[in-house]
Amino acid sequence: MTNTRVTLASRPNGMIKPTDFKIVQEDLPELKDGEVLVKQVYMSLDPAMRGWLDEDEGSYMPPVRIGETMRSFGIGIVEASNNSAFTVGTRVNGMFGWSEHYITTGEDLVPLPEDVPLEHFMGLLGLPGATAYHGFMELIDTPKAGETVLISGAAGSVGSLVGQIAKAEGLKVIGVTGSDEKKEWLLNELGFDAVINYKTENLEEMVAKYAPDGIDRHFENVGGKVLEVALDNMKIGGKITLCGLISTYNDTEPSVGPHLVRAIARRLTLKGLVIIDQQHRFGEIFEKLSAYAQKGQIKYRLDIEEGLKQAPEAINKLFDGTNQGKLVIRI
Amino acid sequence: MTNTRVTLASRPNGMIKPTDFKIVQEDLPELKDGEVLVKQVYMSLDPAMRGWLDEDEGSYMPPVRIGETMRSFGIGIVEASNNSAFTVGTRVNGMFGWSEHYITTGEDLVPLPEDVPLEHFMGLLGLPGATAYHGFMELIDTPKAGETVLISGAAGSVGSLVGQIAKAEGLKVIGVTGSDEKKEWLLNELGFDAVINYKTENLEEMVAKYAPDGIDRHFENVGGKVLEVALDNMKIGGKITLCGLISTYNDTEPSVGPHLVRAIARRLTLKGLVIIDQQHRFGEIFEKLSAYAQKGQIKYRLDIEEGLKQAPEAINKLFDGTNQGKLVIRI
Repeated sequence: MTNTRVTLASRPNGMIKPTDFKIVQEDLPELKDGEVLVKQVYMSLDPAMRGWLDEDEGSYMPPVRIGETMRSFGIGIVEASNNSAFTVGTRVNGMFGWSEHYITTGEDLVPLPEDVPLEHFMGLLGLPGATAYHGFMELIDTPKAGETVLISGAAGSVGSLVGQIAKAEGLKVIGVTGSDEKKEWLLNELGFDAVINYKTENLEEMVAKYAPDGIDRHFENVGGKVLEVALDNMKIGGKITLCGLISTYNDTEPSVGPHLVRAIARRLTLKGLVIIDQQHRFGEIFEKLSAYAQKGQIKYRLDIEEGLKQAPEAINKLFDGTNQGKLVIRI
Repeated sequence: MTNTRVTLASRPNGMIKPTDFKIVQEDLPELKDGEVLVKQVYMSLDPAMRGWLDEDEGSYMPPVRIGETMRSFGIGIVEASNNSAFTVGTRVNGMFGWSEHYITTGEDLVPLPEDVPLEHFMGLLGLPGATAYHGFMELIDTPKAGETVLISGAAGSVGSLVGQIAKAEGLKVIGVTGSDEKKEWLLNELGFDAVINYKTENLEEMVAKYAPDGIDRHFENVGGKVLEVALDNMKIGGKITLCGLISTYNDTEPSVGPHLVRAIARRLTLKGLVIIDQQHRFGEIFEKLSAYAQKGQIKYRLDIEEGLKQAPEAINKLFDGTNQGKLVIRI
């Protein structure tokens, strides 16, 4: 029995070239005791794969090695089994890779229910569904009816689900996509409140138009310009799910500025701080600080300039780094 | 009785010039009924002031207007009072601005305890103390002993307190600063575990050396290069407090890439998502998704390519945006 699989031949530089892969034909070995043979039926292609092709220890999975079968998630049917836990015909999912067949001892297989069309496990009941639900409904906090959400990559496998979940939960949903066909689909079929084709419309103007009071939540699949516009239009206390930054995945040079792609791979939380919000709690906070000071755990120094008229000159010490300690004017 | 105050004469372009301000001498008006006259003693100069000088509605406070007294936080003593709530000699803080004297009806004055040296309210028991404590101990979640924290602007009024609080709480503390004098102070006086002078040392190499297993928390006062290096060295699940991005405040052009300064002014939360972390909860999540689908609230479409050998070509549809729906290969 022969099998076809696809291995990584070379690491892509920028966009993936078909020649970065190699098609391998091989005879399948005999099944050993305890092993299961899966025939893959649907194989998922996902943006995160681009990261697996780079020699970069910063991703959340190790890179695919040269000569190794390309990694992927898929759905299949057990075609032969020497393992009593899996009967022939069982539907399963797993990381089968770019291969027609997959041999395993079974620990990495997840059996699937029989009463759902198989292709559902590629979408709603697969990684896109889980990503959309968890990323929108659970990751930060629970969205509330009446809030406004902006979604980039809105017609994508995750974005289209986030938008529909948000509509079902009573939010106002604004999508950003890259073609009029996708825009029509999101508006007319999926019921988005507004959709912006960023290739033909002015993103800043349209976001300001559709969300005049600002955005409560942003679900980011794309990055780049749309994240800039989202940040510029967030309400105070807004929440951003960093799910994907697909616009940057094929970059051959590191992007300028903070590499937020790290925030995805490392599951980081970044939070902005404005201390005046806590003014009502200063008494409580100062008690805690005084306790450190009483134990001799905190020292502090002031950089004192004399006289109000020094202020216009002295303020630049903050920016050229020449102040030593908290900069204050004594009047 | 005369007063001296400093008003904004013109909006700075880049670094602040002394000529952007104007010194005004004036007679103080008679105190009306209910009013209080404060003599300012210590006036705080803070990096956030740079943002108040820009004509940018994106800040957390309105811009200071041309001709208006420059805004600032200060400590003073009640010098005269027609308000029974404030006796002469009471110590108070408030937003007095760049002015020797301040007249108010008193609602915006906070009386201060008498048993602490006055200058303490400029530091430990002032905005820097509150910012350091809340931003490090409370904003995201409570730091744990044994964690590693990286602090930029470590010798600054907030950074120096964050580092000492972190030491008191049992963390490993790495500071980044810009002079050897500050480095010595942080190491020898404040007890930081390691300090990097970013002007003379290689930041990437030193962070990797002092935090070989990565950083649990990062307290950001500066932005730019140090935030890049921090992101590159965060552990999975790491937490970043965005307190200041002082390196960008004097930029005359918007920075390239996402404007994280918005995350501060708007108190945003950004959180990275990797869905495989939730694999043990997929059953629960899929039940919720199925409930939407049963109510007809969710539609989904697949973009199906036929045959394993199409994969190396088809994967680029994800990046040029030509796929319509979830991209899968049917084998």
